[in-house]
Amino acid sequence: MAEARLDVLLVMAPENIVYTAGVLPPSLRTVRTRLACCVIPAEGSTELIVVALEKGAVEPECWLDAVTPYREFEQDAVSVAAASLRERGLSAASIGIEETYLPKAAFEVLQASLPDARFVAIDGLLADARCIKTQDEIDSIASIGRVAQTIGEECLGLVSAGDTERALGTLISERYAETGGRLTMLVVGSGARSAIPNAAPTDRILERGDTVRIDVIGTRDNYCSDVARTAVVGEPTMEQQALYGTLKEVHERILERLRPGALTSDLYSIYRDAMEDAGLPYYHFVGHGLGITLHEDPFINDGRPVMLAPNMVICIEPMTLIEGRQGMQIEDEVLITSDGCRLLTEAGDLLRIEA
Amino acid sequence: MAEARLDVLLVMAPENIVYTAGVLPPSLRTVRTRLACCVIPAEGSTELIVVALEKGAVEPECWLDAVTPYREFEQDAVSVAAASLRERGLSAASIGIEETYLPKAAFEVLQASLPDARFVAIDGLLADARCIKTQDEIDSIASIGRVAQTIGEECLGLVSAGDTERALGTLISERYAETGGRLTMLVVGSGARSAIPNAAPTDRILERGDTVRIDVIGTRDNYCSDVARTAVVGEPTMEQQALYGTLKEVHERILERLRPGALTSDLYSIYRDAMEDAGLPYYHFVGHGLGITLHEDPFINDGRPVMLAPNMVICIEPMTLIEGRQGMQIEDEVLITSDGCRLLTEAGDLLRIEA
Repeated sequence: MAEARLDVLLVMAPENIVYTAGVLPPSLRTVRTRLACCVIPAEGSTELIVVALEKGAVEPECWLDAVTPYREFEQDAVSVAAASLRERGLSAASIGIEETYLPKAAFEVLQASLPDARFVAIDGLLADARCIKTQDEIDSIASIGRVAQTIGEECLGLVSAGDTERALGTLISERYAETGGRLTMLVVGSGARSAIPNAAPTDRILERGDTVRIDVIGTRDNYCSDVARTAVVGEPTMEQQALYGTLKEVHERILERLRPGALTSDLYSIYRDAMEDAGLPYYHFVGHGLGITLHEDPFINDGRPVMLAPNMVICIEPMTLIEGRQGMQIEDEVLITSDGCRLLTEAGDLLRIEA
Repeated sequence: MAEARLDVLLVMAPENIVYTAGVLPPSLRTVRTRLACCVIPAEGSTELIVVALEKGAVEPECWLDAVTPYREFEQDAVSVAAASLRERGLSAASIGIEETYLPKAAFEVLQASLPDARFVAIDGLLADARCIKTQDEIDSIASIGRVAQTIGEECLGLVSAGDTERALGTLISERYAETGGRLTMLVVGSGARSAIPNAAPTDRILERGDTVRIDVIGTRDNYCSDVARTAVVGEPTMEQQALYGTLKEVHERILERLRPGALTSDLYSIYRDAMEDAGLPYYHFVGHGLGITLHEDPFINDGRPVMLAPNMVICIEPMTLIEGRQGMQIEDEVLITSDGCRLLTEAGDLLRIEA
């Protein structure tokens, strides 16, 4: 904050509230108007401003000094935050806000309430901080990641030709829920649908020869899992074996290169070049940070190169989606260590579904 | 649109995208930066602008004339929308935007791209439209509402003293997932925790004499369920019976009054007055609209009075939360018909959990 010359941060995006206060007000997922706000001054006490009805739900877990309630329908989080800043003598302060989250109307309320303040975007600053995980964060991610891998692989072994994508999806959902997790975007695509990114399970029936791609995306205790696996119904063709082999080789080559100092752009090149050589379609990224959110910095693409650093957790997910035919993907979660990396999940060979 | 003198709407909030385009781009739940935008001109073709990787996922279900992809990391939804408006000759148009959703940064991009445009907030206009449900919407809500009621009541019958809130929560989650639904905010509070609004299930063990309050909040096929039930572990005390009886009577008195023309403020008075007479704490609303979102217009509180109209779907949820002791709630979903109402779910007596 000193470096950015900020007097106070107003943190409102759900992932940054979790990061700052250790708790997600439940309504932030379900009732869009119930905004919450962490007030984090450079000096003085911190507070989480939250809709009054959720004070009791957040208080036991909240790390901040105080939980300040606001009355729904009568008050709003931003006005209460502005009043708090005035009371603290911060009316003309440099105030950090998340410009990619704060709704236009809420910003205008803030601006009108604090006409002498200077507003500074802190979206990047928060994203950079979240990039490097603490040990507790790593433990949470590793734990739900292993769950996602185990459940995904086991459930592929429980269905067979004649079952639907939905049946497979339901199995995964049930087991994931049993562990206390909540799926946020389960991908189950079979046959030509395996080539559709983020395809939800449908009533399509699994048939002998189908490629089946699943991606177990969900959260538990505020941290995400993102593990993708590919299977074939029955005996894979030579083409399917070769396709998977190409991805697996790219996957391994990238994993070998994961260490502090490695550049995201170089890692992406390994993937892009291999796919171009093989004449296969490739995706616009081959990895991303994972944490409270599903996709966060660093992105492994051909944009701005970022240097990997210890305690980043990233997903590596070489994928090829051949439209109208089939899509394959291998996605593992990896921790960057002081001198290399540690796999939090680990993909094996092309999986089989009984024909 | 003619009435509001709007040339074009840019619809970006998830619930309004579902309402306008019939489909939710999957990432809108998981990747905050992947904004989407429906372009709805008064004249000419409509389009859904969506991150390129999800074109295939939304296209089969999208109602709009076209799905326009934008490239992640290189383009953004708002710039592509602005370009589309310029091409349509709408650079200086009156453009409807959702000011309570559109992030500050995205609005600034829009404004810079279309310096001659006039921007008008359409948040209220869209909320008003969504308030009156179509038959398809009513069918979707009724169907998942019945699921929520059945699962909630059955699962209360499957646990007993000694089980945890989490065990009950997991049972409900699994069964809800089995029907193709996804819980978004399951409430399970036992003992003193039953008085905490929006309390997620914990490892607290159910004990003889506990009040247990559950609220089955989730979605299926883009529509929400919101059904709350109260149970007691073992034989209820006289106080528990009386408390439930008071709520049940309020519930029935409100249900009797539900018809077109009834005022939300009058309905709230029934609840507030009864609770004041009984010396019980009351909530700041006793009902709300239900649809693509959990809480939508009309709100049944003592704010601006709204007249009920046919084809509104509302939740009626008398509740009393006695902090540190116990909380009870009865919540049903109701359709307003041309001359009264039809219960989509129907609560009975105080439920029992085996001691």
